[in-house]
Amino acid sequence: MNIQELPFQAEEYKARRKKLMESMGSGQMLLLGNSLSSINFIDNYYPFRQDSSFLYYIGISQPGLNALIDADEGTCILFGDEMSIDHVIWMGEQEKLHDLASKSGITTVRQSHEIYDYIKKNCHYLPPYRPEHTIRLEEYLDLKELNPSLKFIMSVVDQRNIKSESEIEFLRKASSLTSAMHREIILNAKEGMYEYELVALASQFAISNNASWSFTPILTVNGQTLHNHSYHNKLENGKLLLFDGGIEHVSGYAGDMTRSFPVGGKFSPLQKDIYDTVVLAHDKSRDLCKAGKYYKDIHLEAALQLATGLKEAGFMKEDPEDAVMEGAHALFYPHGLGHMIGLDVHDMENLGEDFVGYDDTIRRSEKFGLKSLRLGRPLEKGFAITIEPGIYFIPQLIRQWAAEKKHDEFINYDKLLKHLDFGGIRIENDYVINDEGASLLGDALPYQSDEIIELLKQ
Amino acid sequence: MNIQELPFQAEEYKARRKKLMESMGSGQMLLLGNSLSSINFIDNYYPFRQDSSFLYYIGISQPGLNALIDADEGTCILFGDEMSIDHVIWMGEQEKLHDLASKSGITTVRQSHEIYDYIKKNCHYLPPYRPEHTIRLEEYLDLKELNPSLKFIMSVVDQRNIKSESEIEFLRKASSLTSAMHREIILNAKEGMYEYELVALASQFAISNNASWSFTPILTVNGQTLHNHSYHNKLENGKLLLFDGGIEHVSGYAGDMTRSFPVGGKFSPLQKDIYDTVVLAHDKSRDLCKAGKYYKDIHLEAALQLATGLKEAGFMKEDPEDAVMEGAHALFYPHGLGHMIGLDVHDMENLGEDFVGYDDTIRRSEKFGLKSLRLGRPLEKGFAITIEPGIYFIPQLIRQWAAEKKHDEFINYDKLLKHLDFGGIRIENDYVINDEGASLLGDALPYQSDEIIELLKQ
Repeated sequence: MNIQELPFQAEEYKARRKKLMESMGSGQMLLLGNSLSSINFIDNYYPFRQDSSFLYYIGISQPGLNALIDADEGTCILFGDEMSIDHVIWMGEQEKLHDLASKSGITTVRQSHEIYDYIKKNCHYLPPYRPEHTIRLEEYLDLKELNPSLKFIMSVVDQRNIKSESEIEFLRKASSLTSAMHREIILNAKEGMYEYELVALASQFAISNNASWSFTPILTVNGQTLHNHSYHNKLENGKLLLFDGGIEHVSGYAGDMTRSFPVGGKFSPLQKDIYDTVVLAHDKSRDLCKAGKYYKDIHLEAALQLATGLKEAGFMKEDPEDAVMEGAHALFYPHGLGHMIGLDVHDMENLGEDFVGYDDTIRRSEKFGLKSLRLGRPLEKGFAITIEPGIYFIPQLIRQWAAEKKHDEFINYDKLLKHLDFGGIRIENDYVINDEGASLLGDALPYQSDEIIELLKQ
Repeated sequence: MNIQELPFQAEEYKARRKKLMESMGSGQMLLLGNSLSSINFIDNYYPFRQDSSFLYYIGISQPGLNALIDADEGTCILFGDEMSIDHVIWMGEQEKLHDLASKSGITTVRQSHEIYDYIKKNCHYLPPYRPEHTIRLEEYLDLKELNPSLKFIMSVVDQRNIKSESEIEFLRKASSLTSAMHREIILNAKEGMYEYELVALASQFAISNNASWSFTPILTVNGQTLHNHSYHNKLENGKLLLFDGGIEHVSGYAGDMTRSFPVGGKFSPLQKDIYDTVVLAHDKSRDLCKAGKYYKDIHLEAALQLATGLKEAGFMKEDPEDAVMEGAHALFYPHGLGHMIGLDVHDMENLGEDFVGYDDTIRRSEKFGLKSLRLGRPLEKGFAITIEPGIYFIPQLIRQWAAEKKHDEFINYDKLLKHLDFGGIRIENDYVINDEGASLLGDALPYQSDEIIELLKQ
């Protein structure tokens, strides 16, 4: 029999639901569990992943469940179906839903179809991110147009944004596994290998540690392509390899790290200059983190570091502060400094990035570069975040800006156009905000240029 | 730039679509391409897998496409959207849709939203197996109730059931990779390992060969659980390990093989008896395969072999032919002998197993055991199939049948109940039906008991 241990004790889930009910005050909250996602026919499906809010409040990682929390009644009902003997033959004996429910402190379990007897038309629900959710919501609530509950979203965001000590412990485990996986890749990347051979190695590391990917990894000699999911290039000595990959611990919590290094173990002078600039931006950002500080301001400080280094390297010119103010640095650094991390690698992105990463005091900018900043609000103790500055030479973007002479008072296009094949460098670690500022989550993995070179020699 | 080579030449896709149009005679056929399947938020998705019929007729493996084939006009239009510069920054430069389309012999490409200008209300479509398909069909056709086209299903099934020489070549590649992966597992399975460590190794093998799984693998010391997807047990010497796993070649074609062997490399006398019985059933089935022969009859011959061996081992009694006639053997062998294999591991299961594996001359039986036989129709040249007999001691089922004294004239429950922990054994290979009968697809991997023991010694 497959026995499922929930990541937390029943008391913890009950306390979370109680807090949610208090925050909502009244009404029904529907938590849609995830179903199996079919690949090419119904019974051939991807590995199951439970919805993260369902995991947070209920903890049961099993397909086909729903939970209805009622703030007026103070109750939580779990909806799902027990397996038939036919299922047992094919899938093996499973734990009874009632037993699973009791591990979450839930005493009432009903069959799936009974949800119609309980659900009210004015029930609160979260925005769907899977088509199966949309279909289920339309069926349960007989709706044509969905209208997710902002109050429900904000209650969940406010609660999940602040990580408890036991959540931080799981985040540490995820980051430590992630760190060990990155070490494996650094130690094994050799000239002549294909990128997918390293993805294979990293996958083996994840699965053999009873874990999985927290997102589709980026492992590429074309680090300038920010979300590259193709792995068909061959590693060449002297080229930069960028690996952005994270492990999801069995509890559901995510790790997310990036390392960039030269295949063969030797930086060119230019690579080292740019790399050290990214290191400086990372370290400066980390040192600036403390509760109360706007993460957007830290992002801009990182941008200033990057612009300063790019000026020293001859790719930018004039005053770096002015350049950042005008947004010229975003040619090299079009993404944000980091994001919340938790049960999702971009925590609660399904609920709306702006609700998670911004608040009443700050709205997301529409400016190129800043519009990709997922986290801008003041940091609070208990926030778990990534810090991940980078510098990229994106040929298509450089050519477009050069043709438009965009920000040409700050950018030395003559030199830049000679280095279109530079690639990209990013350094990323995971942190939790506490009394000390930003504390690294998990085991440290070297990233200073001399340390990386030392590792590559092993 | 990510250049996509289609598995076949444009002429091949054009010929396939022409044949489909001829088979349909008239009307519009909608081929829904697959979208990205989100895991826990929209932008975190599972590895993309194109719909297999879309792959067969169009060949382009890219999310978010649709194709409309018009038998009256003799045309095929591809619907999809080119990437914006914003997308290029994040995803890298992609091949233009027009260029991809021309590789498939398609000259007309329209933007996604333009489908509304072309699609007719009486358009034929296939049954949806992903919720996104259901939503899209309802939107395009303004339908409340879906009504997939039986004529379209049958045209596709008749065409895809017969594999061309070039398809068989891809199936061979998939089976050869699958065979090599199984060899790795046999060579590396050692006492004390966890099942997931072997899954990790097999995953590494798949990915490092630029391939993927054709289905979620079964790798278990509890082979009696037919679709076990949990990998948390430790390997113990003397226990049987069953690995049912297949590789999907980059062309989309699937391999599917099973091996069962004793951890530590030594069969117990009982294990060897049962194992050799399964081997006999496999070999007999393979030898019986020829065009014109009902696969259901071969399934029943296999069942007879199994029942005969089980009688010799003392678990069954009386006449094995009578036992099979009555269905008593299904206690040990509740599944079917095999299934079609192609672009799907259960080929076209999304279109309906009964349309694929049965025909006008034979309907699927409702009897326990036979109801799980996916393929019953007469074999034809060009069919690609699996042969996979097995014997399982399923405690829950044995206890239930014993309590009901079900078929107790044929089953020796006294002895059986003493061996509830036996486990399960299955042997599976992939074949194509041709003039010689059933020819093995891909590189042979040993499965005779002495050969397996020899391999385990390496």
